[in-house]
Amino acid sequence: MICMLKQTRNSTARSVAGLRFVVLTLCAVGFSAPAEIANVEQWGIFEQAFEGPAGGNPFVDVEFTAVFTQNDQSVPVRGFYDGNGIYRVRFSPQTQGQWTYETKSNCLALSGRTGSLTAVAPAKSNHGPVKVAHTFHFAYADGTPYRPIGTTCYAWTHQDEKLQEQTLKTLSQSPFNKIRFCVFPKSYTYNKNEPQLYPFEGTPPSSWDFTRLNPEFFRHFERRIQQLGELGIEADVILFHPYDKGHWGFDRMSAANDDRYLRYVIARFATFRNVWWSLANEYDFMKEKTPADWDRFFQIVQSEDPYGRLRSIHNGTLLYNHTQPWVTHASIQNGSAVEDYGRAVLYRDVYLKPIVFDEVKYEGNIPQRWGNISDQEMVLRFWEGTIAGTYVGHGETYLDPSDVIWWSKGGVLHGNSPARIAFLRKIMEEGPAEGLEPIDKWQDYPFAGKRGEYYLAYFGRQSLTEWPFELHKAQIKDGMKFSVEVIDTWDMTITPVKGVFETKKRDDYAFADKDGRRVPLPGKPYIALRIRRIAE
Amino acid sequence: MICMLKQTRNSTARSVAGLRFVVLTLCAVGFSAPAEIANVEQWGIFEQAFEGPAGGNPFVDVEFTAVFTQNDQSVPVRGFYDGNGIYRVRFSPQTQGQWTYETKSNCLALSGRTGSLTAVAPAKSNHGPVKVAHTFHFAYADGTPYRPIGTTCYAWTHQDEKLQEQTLKTLSQSPFNKIRFCVFPKSYTYNKNEPQLYPFEGTPPSSWDFTRLNPEFFRHFERRIQQLGELGIEADVILFHPYDKGHWGFDRMSAANDDRYLRYVIARFATFRNVWWSLANEYDFMKEKTPADWDRFFQIVQSEDPYGRLRSIHNGTLLYNHTQPWVTHASIQNGSAVEDYGRAVLYRDVYLKPIVFDEVKYEGNIPQRWGNISDQEMVLRFWEGTIAGTYVGHGETYLDPSDVIWWSKGGVLHGNSPARIAFLRKIMEEGPAEGLEPIDKWQDYPFAGKRGEYYLAYFGRQSLTEWPFELHKAQIKDGMKFSVEVIDTWDMTITPVKGVFETKKRDDYAFADKDGRRVPLPGKPYIALRIRRIAE
Repeated sequence: MICMLKQTRNSTARSVAGLRFVVLTLCAVGFSAPAEIANVEQWGIFEQAFEGPAGGNPFVDVEFTAVFTQNDQSVPVRGFYDGNGIYRVRFSPQTQGQWTYETKSNCLALSGRTGSLTAVAPAKSNHGPVKVAHTFHFAYADGTPYRPIGTTCYAWTHQDEKLQEQTLKTLSQSPFNKIRFCVFPKSYTYNKNEPQLYPFEGTPPSSWDFTRLNPEFFRHFERRIQQLGELGIEADVILFHPYDKGHWGFDRMSAANDDRYLRYVIARFATFRNVWWSLANEYDFMKEKTPADWDRFFQIVQSEDPYGRLRSIHNGTLLYNHTQPWVTHASIQNGSAVEDYGRAVLYRDVYLKPIVFDEVKYEGNIPQRWGNISDQEMVLRFWEGTIAGTYVGHGETYLDPSDVIWWSKGGVLHGNSPARIAFLRKIMEEGPAEGLEPIDKWQDYPFAGKRGEYYLAYFGRQSLTEWPFELHKAQIKDGMKFSVEVIDTWDMTITPVKGVFETKKRDDYAFADKDGRRVPLPGKPYIALRIRRIAE
Repeated sequence: MICMLKQTRNSTARSVAGLRFVVLTLCAVGFSAPAEIANVEQWGIFEQAFEGPAGGNPFVDVEFTAVFTQNDQSVPVRGFYDGNGIYRVRFSPQTQGQWTYETKSNCLALSGRTGSLTAVAPAKSNHGPVKVAHTFHFAYADGTPYRPIGTTCYAWTHQDEKLQEQTLKTLSQSPFNKIRFCVFPKSYTYNKNEPQLYPFEGTPPSSWDFTRLNPEFFRHFERRIQQLGELGIEADVILFHPYDKGHWGFDRMSAANDDRYLRYVIARFATFRNVWWSLANEYDFMKEKTPADWDRFFQIVQSEDPYGRLRSIHNGTLLYNHTQPWVTHASIQNGSAVEDYGRAVLYRDVYLKPIVFDEVKYEGNIPQRWGNISDQEMVLRFWEGTIAGTYVGHGETYLDPSDVIWWSKGGVLHGNSPARIAFLRKIMEEGPAEGLEPIDKWQDYPFAGKRGEYYLAYFGRQSLTEWPFELHKAQIKDGMKFSVEVIDTWDMTITPVKGVFETKKRDDYAFADKDGRRVPLPGKPYIALRIRRIAE
């Protein structure tokens, strides 16, 4: 059929940010049933399909958006082509109640389509998307604290189905509530296998039509996002990476193709409430891109994503300027920084945002120095980062006869750190809802917590035999009572210290126990303390 | 006499940035001799006096500027009122050759005055102003390296003349080539004495006309700047500080008064080539100011100072955003950061500017914890900062029966660190002209230098008995020959190690000595190594 073209001067359509109107000469028109009122959970996903032109290049020729409206709120949303003449629009209502929508397009069949949905109360397990909270921490939209305990399997969605299912199973039994993984496949040491699907139409390895995305690839990828969401795991989606080196050429597309890819990904994935955007892994190793490209990508993500999902960018050796307003949290690769809480805290000071150490080297035994730290060292880094008021991510690189290494392909975990990380996670979850704050930064005082209420100390590699009970003065008065527990972070034991400690001012900086009591410690490394105020 | 008022619509005058034109009804007019051609060194100071109105409020009523011109270059410069009907304009030519000028004013007697000067080659000791060089370091304008070794005497210019002269004498015999000090007097522990002079007209302690500056105060202050310059010492001038708490009220003036004060100070001091601008000490402790105030102050300094002198701002516990383009280098208070080169380097990574630790606590014995680190600890902090590719500042707080403490009042130095800092300074001066760069950051490798040529290592508190010769691979090939010296940073000895070390690839990361030689070390703390390539 002949597609009736809308005029580009349509002023309402033009008001949608970022739309380009292309003059179509001919396109097929189809029909879909009039939309009925649908019920969808707050923070859930509403999706509506429409038939439209399959000819020409729908990814380039057809502009298709919808505006969702509730009272004074109008949320413009980009639709996307899903192949076979099907166009979809997705929407995640951030507030409950009725929403209406109207589509706009430069193709008449896709324009002016209207409908409604009702956003209902979320299910018990649906806490909404994760947001920044209390400057340095995170919480779900309903206020439930979220403490990121991440891991990385860069190319797990590009492995065979069986391996992907195994990875999901492993994750479901792990402490991890965030995983970093790449949209584009990866060509790198231990990961030279071709993926199951490709993001563009064409012929592997390097003959692609970058103007034609492959809906099947993205349908697969978003099913994985959804499955992670069902496990309570945030999907930290890496949009670009340097592990291509022109093998496929996804790392060196033109700016127009990069931007179209980004808009398509956002149109599809942004509605999933567990999505975080990681602009790139080791962005500075992508020599094809300039600093201005990264700023532009951030701005595209910021303007195209109606929900303001978390945005970060991960470095090789050159940090991005995380003070930029479009960066919601600093995603940092630096293992050295979490060897010492006195280092990790410095990033908090400069960025005044949540600090997530998304790569701190890997527990494993590969020859590369970034991939052979010990299990104990990995756990130490988690603790040092934690008492600095920052968050640490896990990774694992144990050699495998089939090169199935967790860091890249997923599969199963072999290391000893995940059990200890689960132990730490439980301790964090029993801690202050606002997150752990350094108690007396820059003063060689390895305590984080909530002043006057809760203290978590970590003595790292030191093998202390005692600790003189001593709390920094902030929020402390004489006569406050505290319980003390000695935590062995490696053996995963929590041993209460007998009796109650009662504060008495010692000097201008600290309060000690009124009877000068000291806490006996087992004289071995990796020992922590938990000190909690006893309710009167 | 009647002052002929210029029209505010004069478009040439309006082109000078930042001028406001106030309608004057009456002002005295005087004369000065027509300017003759003067010779002045490049980077030196040209000054011309003009008689003008002494009545009304010259600081508020009279706008007075000059534009200095050489070929295509035009440099607008603000003049200033120096009391007794004398107006001055100062100019520091940044290029040699002839310059002409023409004054502009809303008072006819001060307007349209013209003259010339010839900027001649600088004297041997005149290297020009210090600028940022090689991203993380500094150099004089003529390319001579400048390695800041700073100290602090906040209120030395506000003490009696004899003490000020003693401070200058002490500085002349010290290793310090930069000193931080405040324009405004200081009211703080150990420093409760009133200053000799005040910056405004009025009656101490708190009855001031903030619209009338006291030229005598500023003449005195700039004489001290000049004397420092003659000693080769940079004057890191602190424009605001919180050590007033309303005692005089210089910390809580109105925005208009703050800004007028800033413009006046810049008009007077900016011509001195050894001036650096420190917007504030512990800026975040000045609760009367907002973040927007600090941004505005920076922008005023940036736009008013024709020479682009170095600009920084020093923190208490909250860092300013040093990524802002108007910050030339990060001036940081954090003693903890230079206990460990692995901490100090992190600031370099985030700011990509020179990092100057302008307060790292004080060598001394006062009860305050910021003022009682040991001499050895101070020296350790200098070395840790140095091998991180950053710069460390000294300070001293030994109790004195008359409360003459170096940190605040100057006087004489009592500590043991300055001699060791002089020793370090000499080593730095014998090092690479470009400055010391971390060799393999984030990898527990305490080496800075210039890859392939020069390495300075520091082992801090470790008491090593040997070090296996091992250089990071960058810029190293098999067969390169190096000399090694063992440096005792406390005893100030440099002991050459016998023989030559020759590189041989060891693994993917490092080169060792071809015969596996190790460097014997004395088994005590504070030991450094200097490794230099031997010319073939």
